[in-house]
Amino acid sequence: MNARSTSTTRDRILTASTELMRRNGYAGTGIKAILALSDTPYGSLYHHFPGGKEQLGTETLRQGGLAYLALVESIYAPGIDVVTATRVFFEEAAAFVESTDYVDACPIATIAGEIAGISDSMRAVAAEAFESWMAVLTSRFVAAGIDPSRSHELAVELFCAIEGAFLLARTTRDAEPVRIAGRAAEAAVQSSIADAPQHAHALRT
Amino acid sequence: MNARSTSTTRDRILTASTELMRRNGYAGTGIKAILALSDTPYGSLYHHFPGGKEQLGTETLRQGGLAYLALVESIYAPGIDVVTATRVFFEEAAAFVESTDYVDACPIATIAGEIAGISDSMRAVAAEAFESWMAVLTSRFVAAGIDPSRSHELAVELFCAIEGAFLLARTTRDAEPVRIAGRAAEAAVQSSIADAPQHAHALRT
Repeated sequence: MNARSTSTTRDRILTASTELMRRNGYAGTGIKAILALSDTPYGSLYHHFPGGKEQLGTETLRQGGLAYLALVESIYAPGIDVVTATRVFFEEAAAFVESTDYVDACPIATIAGEIAGISDSMRAVAAEAFESWMAVLTSRFVAAGIDPSRSHELAVELFCAIEGAFLLARTTRDAEPVRIAGRAAEAAVQSSIADAPQHAHALRT
Repeated sequence: MNARSTSTTRDRILTASTELMRRNGYAGTGIKAILALSDTPYGSLYHHFPGGKEQLGTETLRQGGLAYLALVESIYAPGIDVVTATRVFFEEAAAFVESTDYVDACPIATIAGEIAGISDSMRAVAAEAFESWMAVLTSRFVAAGIDPSRSHELAVELFCAIEGAFLLARTTRDAEPVRIAGRAAEAAVQSSIADAPQHAHALRT
């Protein structure tokens, strides 16, 4: 019971921190707001996060990164063709941004952009998260018969497309950029598969 | 003399604000740091920016937007072919991010991401800046014979690619994503020109 409530308090603080920081950024999120939203006393926060706000930011980046990794893995599930997965990924992203009234998009991009030049430890955690998403994409593209070097490039292109589109969609309050970026991404995946020397082989196995 | 020194003080404040906010974001930039960097007293700041920090943020977005617009216009100069311009644009962007040790990239993206859900007046100014850049790209693509609807999409794709690549480059401290995004952007422009029904016509005129 005690262990459970301890873990719950920690989770509640992190959930509140993630929700506030993805919307308002790292500097724009006050400790007081996190305490209020998570309904925890000040002492609990420093008990669970003795490193204070920077530790909270780091954990928020890590958790947000893992949550998005799970999303990418579920959409690019083994066995689903990567062209369809790419279409679904961008379509769901567009619908999500609209459903949150253009407030939420990537769970960690806002924080990452803000802290990249300020906190090297937070920056490294954000980089690890981004790279973990691209590693899943790369492995799925390789499994689809695209050569490893092109698969890596394609993963980077898709990452850039979705993050840039999220920024533009939130700023213009319009999800159309996400759909435009999605159509281009889908076409890029399609044409990489068509160009792949392994294409015939991949289709046979 | 008096008018000149007034304008200089205002410019100095804005330059300091732009430099700090592009690196540290809006919330992460304190008024005190702006005063220190611009070497102005507190009273001067409120004399020139009676709306305080939000007005400074708004003007910073506007100035940053205009500066980048001038850059886009100079690279996509009328008469330069758009495939070459696209290559140069991304190559220069990659070199710039490296030259600032991954601290500076887009002058307004960090602020835009942070304030999109917080300040509607700042968000609108950021949206206007982004749209002004894409309008230049769109008009250059149309001039190159690409149809208007495809030209608009291509401008959105390039915007998303560069902004996503800037975020990834700053976070991973590696400009390679900007180069990868640039090669994809160049290929997209090239193939849109090849597909354009006006292609033959544009070449003749």
